[in-house]
Amino acid sequence: MTSFTRCDHQMMARAIQLAKRGQYTTSPNPNVGCVIADKLGNIVGEGWHQKAGTPHAEVHALRQAGELAKGATAYVTLEPCSHQGRTPPCADALIQAQVSRVIVAMEDPNPLVSGRGLTKLQQAGIATETGLLSLAAKQLNRGFIKRMRVGKPWVTVKLAATLDGKTALKNGLSQWITGPEARQDVQRHRAQSCAILSGSGTVMADNPSLNVRYAELGLAAEELSSVNLRQPLRVILDGRNQLPTSLRCLQPMQSNDAGDVLLINGQPSIHQFPNHVQQWQAPFVANKLDLNSVMAKLSAMQLNQVWVEAGAKLAGALLQNNLVDELILYQAPKLIGGDGQNLFDILPLQSMQEVVDLTLCDVRQVGTDIKITALL
Amino acid sequence: MTSFTRCDHQMMARAIQLAKRGQYTTSPNPNVGCVIADKLGNIVGEGWHQKAGTPHAEVHALRQAGELAKGATAYVTLEPCSHQGRTPPCADALIQAQVSRVIVAMEDPNPLVSGRGLTKLQQAGIATETGLLSLAAKQLNRGFIKRMRVGKPWVTVKLAATLDGKTALKNGLSQWITGPEARQDVQRHRAQSCAILSGSGTVMADNPSLNVRYAELGLAAEELSSVNLRQPLRVILDGRNQLPTSLRCLQPMQSNDAGDVLLINGQPSIHQFPNHVQQWQAPFVANKLDLNSVMAKLSAMQLNQVWVEAGAKLAGALLQNNLVDELILYQAPKLIGGDGQNLFDILPLQSMQEVVDLTLCDVRQVGTDIKITALL
Repeated sequence: MTSFTRCDHQMMARAIQLAKRGQYTTSPNPNVGCVIADKLGNIVGEGWHQKAGTPHAEVHALRQAGELAKGATAYVTLEPCSHQGRTPPCADALIQAQVSRVIVAMEDPNPLVSGRGLTKLQQAGIATETGLLSLAAKQLNRGFIKRMRVGKPWVTVKLAATLDGKTALKNGLSQWITGPEARQDVQRHRAQSCAILSGSGTVMADNPSLNVRYAELGLAAEELSSVNLRQPLRVILDGRNQLPTSLRCLQPMQSNDAGDVLLINGQPSIHQFPNHVQQWQAPFVANKLDLNSVMAKLSAMQLNQVWVEAGAKLAGALLQNNLVDELILYQAPKLIGGDGQNLFDILPLQSMQEVVDLTLCDVRQVGTDIKITALL
Repeated sequence: MTSFTRCDHQMMARAIQLAKRGQYTTSPNPNVGCVIADKLGNIVGEGWHQKAGTPHAEVHALRQAGELAKGATAYVTLEPCSHQGRTPPCADALIQAQVSRVIVAMEDPNPLVSGRGLTKLQQAGIATETGLLSLAAKQLNRGFIKRMRVGKPWVTVKLAATLDGKTALKNGLSQWITGPEARQDVQRHRAQSCAILSGSGTVMADNPSLNVRYAELGLAAEELSSVNLRQPLRVILDGRNQLPTSLRCLQPMQSNDAGDVLLINGQPSIHQFPNHVQQWQAPFVANKLDLNSVMAKLSAMQLNQVWVEAGAKLAGALLQNNLVDELILYQAPKLIGGDGQNLFDILPLQSMQEVVDLTLCDVRQVGTDIKITALL
């Protein structure tokens, strides 16, 4: 059993903090932070991964440390890579800099490469330890980890409802159930996602932009000035090829303020779409788009985190296919009554044993609304 | 504009704390606390009202203070009474004890007597001030205040549901949606209520006891040892005289572990009921029990706080009659799907303007569940 010092904990906590700075930009790569500290516990180098194709966290930190890296300890939130990718292997860089110890929060989640970076370091005589603040480190990269291990993205279903669980009136009216603070919070989640998934029903009813309005996020100037802020891919399920080309997200784009569109349909559309719209035909199961294939496709496209904004049908179908990892529910202190529209359409349950159990992670007020986060 | 000192605030806060000790016992009287402090800010007497017909808070505090009350300040959470009730007027007792100043948190809510106690004190040359910590003092006696001012009790509707707002499966199964901590919390609320209101549908479906299991409340020994712990009146609406006498709450009682029953029906029952069951026939409106008359009746019976444990029909009917003051919703981190039973049956809404707005007061976790408190 490894025992880490108080100083070790502080350094790794700092590395995790640094890693988070990449949360809007590193996709499809994971968020990684690195701190290099000398034997007295002084930080001599810091870095975080900013964008795929650019240097990894360790390289930034080593550059800052320079000669001071020699004999120092490197704290990295994820096992250093051992292979030549678009950048040289970080394990080699750490060896070259002659650090004496490397502590990582967690191993590489890809079972095919996991442990190789650590082995390389050990073979070079560098002491290594694993598992410091690993839960926090895993939290950073839930999507990347799930994609590497399972071949599917991390799926968060977002829903907004009244206290009595209604998303809209029976006649479909729903604007605005939740307040501006909750809607801004949704923007933050969209910004951290690789893709926004919706269904044809919702898109036809609301004609949404499904983009990130970065100006509304309240980001620090430093983050906003980054040229790497992504717009999530907009994935729209349209099994019956019902979408009209007049929809906002299928119209030619005037600027870069929205992501590309992946239209997943049952057969190639007869329509001509603008350049930002791609189509993909998913297989059908029981007369519906096979949602497992959809998720495997999104994973193959290197999409780590999928944010779902959909109606009761798609939300229910994802739930029944065990494709939901997380539910984020915004509840407005309002009541619509039994006649309103439901949150999840799933098959009728016959016994209490069939009730879907979640684990509550967080409950808080966001403006005048409640935000509930729960894991499936 | 009166300005109260830091010491005044501390004394009144203590008086409010004392008043709360009566929360399970003073009904139909309000909770009242009193602190008597000398000129140096030393507490020389404390008291709280414990039960109707026994001495008021001021009398307890004056007895404890004895001679030291002379020239002291009395802090009372509610204006001292000026009339001879089952006990002599407290204003007279304060005059007799020669206190020099009386600070009250709020005036008597009964418009017919409000201000008379203060006037009496002033006429005896005692300085008086009003309004210190008045919000907290009003919170103590919401039911008493509403009954005095409006002639209706304070009505709290309690509901338990899944995150998607379902109280039961379509087939009626619902045990147990919420966990033991939430159910214990419900017991605390029942214990603070004067009456528990339910409808025939719920009572026939669940055959509940609708009592307070004091042993489960986790009360201090001091509170539990009180012989005055009340069992709320059990009020059951049975407009169509459907209830069978075999129901638990209509069977002869073996002990005092439940309250009396008031059966509100459309016509006198043909059944013989045990002694603890009374009947009252409410007028009908639109072929249903007139809920406004029901509430006026409960108010006339000196019931301050009514705790409603009912299904979607009665909850919805109370809502639509503007008879709900507060909603307490326990949400289990579970999902049942659109097919489950709803929280509120109300008339279908046509526009978002008709959506019922509430004010969120409190959101917290209770065990593994969420407890939401909102005011109508």
